[in-house]
Amino acid sequence: MSEESATVVWAEPLKDFCTRVFVKLDVPPEDAAITADNLVAANLRGIDSHGVARLRRYVNGLRDGVMLARPKITVVHEMPATALIDGGAGLGQPVSVRAMRLAIEKALQVGAGFVTVRNSNHYGIAGYYAMMALEHECIGISMTNADVLVVPTFGRDAMLGTNPISVAAPAGEERPFVLDMATSTVPRGKLEEYDRQGKPLPLGWATDEQGLPTTDAGRVLRNFLSRAGGGLLPLGGAGEELGGHKGYGLALLVDVLSGVLPGAGYATNIYPKTAEGRPLPANVGHFFGALRVDGFRPLAEFKATMDDIIRCLKHSARAEGQERIYIHGEKEFEMAEERLAHGIPLHPKVVADLRKIAEETGVEYDL
Amino acid sequence: MSEESATVVWAEPLKDFCTRVFVKLDVPPEDAAITADNLVAANLRGIDSHGVARLRRYVNGLRDGVMLARPKITVVHEMPATALIDGGAGLGQPVSVRAMRLAIEKALQVGAGFVTVRNSNHYGIAGYYAMMALEHECIGISMTNADVLVVPTFGRDAMLGTNPISVAAPAGEERPFVLDMATSTVPRGKLEEYDRQGKPLPLGWATDEQGLPTTDAGRVLRNFLSRAGGGLLPLGGAGEELGGHKGYGLALLVDVLSGVLPGAGYATNIYPKTAEGRPLPANVGHFFGALRVDGFRPLAEFKATMDDIIRCLKHSARAEGQERIYIHGEKEFEMAEERLAHGIPLHPKVVADLRKIAEETGVEYDL
Repeated sequence: MSEESATVVWAEPLKDFCTRVFVKLDVPPEDAAITADNLVAANLRGIDSHGVARLRRYVNGLRDGVMLARPKITVVHEMPATALIDGGAGLGQPVSVRAMRLAIEKALQVGAGFVTVRNSNHYGIAGYYAMMALEHECIGISMTNADVLVVPTFGRDAMLGTNPISVAAPAGEERPFVLDMATSTVPRGKLEEYDRQGKPLPLGWATDEQGLPTTDAGRVLRNFLSRAGGGLLPLGGAGEELGGHKGYGLALLVDVLSGVLPGAGYATNIYPKTAEGRPLPANVGHFFGALRVDGFRPLAEFKATMDDIIRCLKHSARAEGQERIYIHGEKEFEMAEERLAHGIPLHPKVVADLRKIAEETGVEYDL
Repeated sequence: MSEESATVVWAEPLKDFCTRVFVKLDVPPEDAAITADNLVAANLRGIDSHGVARLRRYVNGLRDGVMLARPKITVVHEMPATALIDGGAGLGQPVSVRAMRLAIEKALQVGAGFVTVRNSNHYGIAGYYAMMALEHECIGISMTNADVLVVPTFGRDAMLGTNPISVAAPAGEERPFVLDMATSTVPRGKLEEYDRQGKPLPLGWATDEQGLPTTDAGRVLRNFLSRAGGGLLPLGGAGEELGGHKGYGLALLVDVLSGVLPGAGYATNIYPKTAEGRPLPANVGHFFGALRVDGFRPLAEFKATMDDIIRCLKHSARAEGQERIYIHGEKEFEMAEERLAHGIPLHPKVVADLRKIAEETGVEYDL
């Protein structure tokens, strides 16, 4: 997206707009604010694919009754360090924030807390929840399964989602370590970007309908729609030579922890449809964890060591032609500072869609 | 290794031989048996690089006093779901088995148990400990940091180890899911194999002393010895195009959890040396976890769903030219069956070394 064509908006009014849209769709104000905050946090961190560009998806889901505005959220089972929550087919964000809060509460009490969620929906960026642990001096963990897009090693059909893993750990003077990664080589959005630009895909991103590596983005995207086969490749690419079986293993691990462990959907049955192809309520599953740092080691020592390992890496020798070595989360923190100071650039298509949503829901568009 | 040149030995006498060697080096019988079992388990599972080929390393470590035969192992700090154990510079295996047992005990009591270890040594295969959780109907987690071999994304020097992640989850009629993966694309042993065969490395495995991708295995191995720079690449290869920053993030995550969290060595300071280059006691760190399945969901339901997801994947359509889709751990379970039935083939060099160890320690070689 070139900056000239983009409309620049501010985070707070954008959040406020999204909140009002959700409230108009009968979402309770607190849940509306959480979901809006999660979407705008994605834009601030530069993960625009998971930002307000997705508002349409939630609006339609709520209107069609596939996502419930006022779900019955229940704690199904609990031990001192674990819990299972049923999201009642509501929005993914409010139940996820509640689940992560519970995981943190348990970690503060007994040292570790792990909470799984079933009957939920798309929860936005994984890192949002992992980072909630930071202000409680805990290490945070967040995973979710997702719509089927990724082909297992040696397979032809997509059987798993891009199933992200996020872990956040506090540091002292340095910024926290925030890993937030899809377990596929790239997300679907990257293929759409290459398709728009007519660029060939690097080998290792996707396979065609025979399960063979391809450079043709359009073909892969068309195959998704027609369910012809093929899809995104796991981290490590095709086959085992570059470790594709490891990325496949991580994607499956996320589905075991977020799908199988809570009794949510998994593999190809997360977004069920009627025989006529009409979407039924989704059954996305999530996995949240928190570890209390001083359940292991005094916090000040941990933070000082985190600062040291971060500095060691950042100041280590750079490869020929490279200017900088990053720590995970660093780029996103810098982007958030930049966008808080100068605004969030929105693509004209996204702006048009937000205006349309405002019209449809009778919410004032004032960005 | 061709089977003709190999000597085939049986698991039980091999384990017994290793146990006797350790006992001769003053290791208590129980610790000796644990360490021997861990090494032979690696051979059985086909991970020969971590099997009895490493006995020499432990023998030398114990003889040189860099690993203590009778360390003082202490629980430094504890909460209901966490603990930190100091390994007292002993062998990695006995303290790791104790730490994993403690994690399982805590999981059985409160639902989750996480135990970190510092002042330890190389602990063998990561999966050994994760799999201990299976018979207790828990999900097991095991990670360790390791000697520095892996270059961060955009870096020139090795700053992290091959830092493995293992997670094991029980199934019903199917075999358990056992992910056990280094976070580098390949281990160092793979480069040695290519070097012996004079084969060029696939791009994405290693970098030269400038931090640039290379196909020259010998050069990378020589650079390790002379500390000239370069090393193994993280899963995803060089740069960010194929997700190398994700593999780097996973390697760093493992160092945060196994190195920083217990207060062990981390990054380049795990195997310290004197100014003259003489090795000092190592400070390897480990991270173990257990999650009680029915702390979330009834066990029978979980197992039935595990069977289903495993079957869905195994029976999904195969890529053109492929014969089989694997679940993680499956190859190793099959190899163990094969080697229990027909013996473990040992490379002539390994056999010669075992004979030499027998001679040096005065243990009868009876394999």
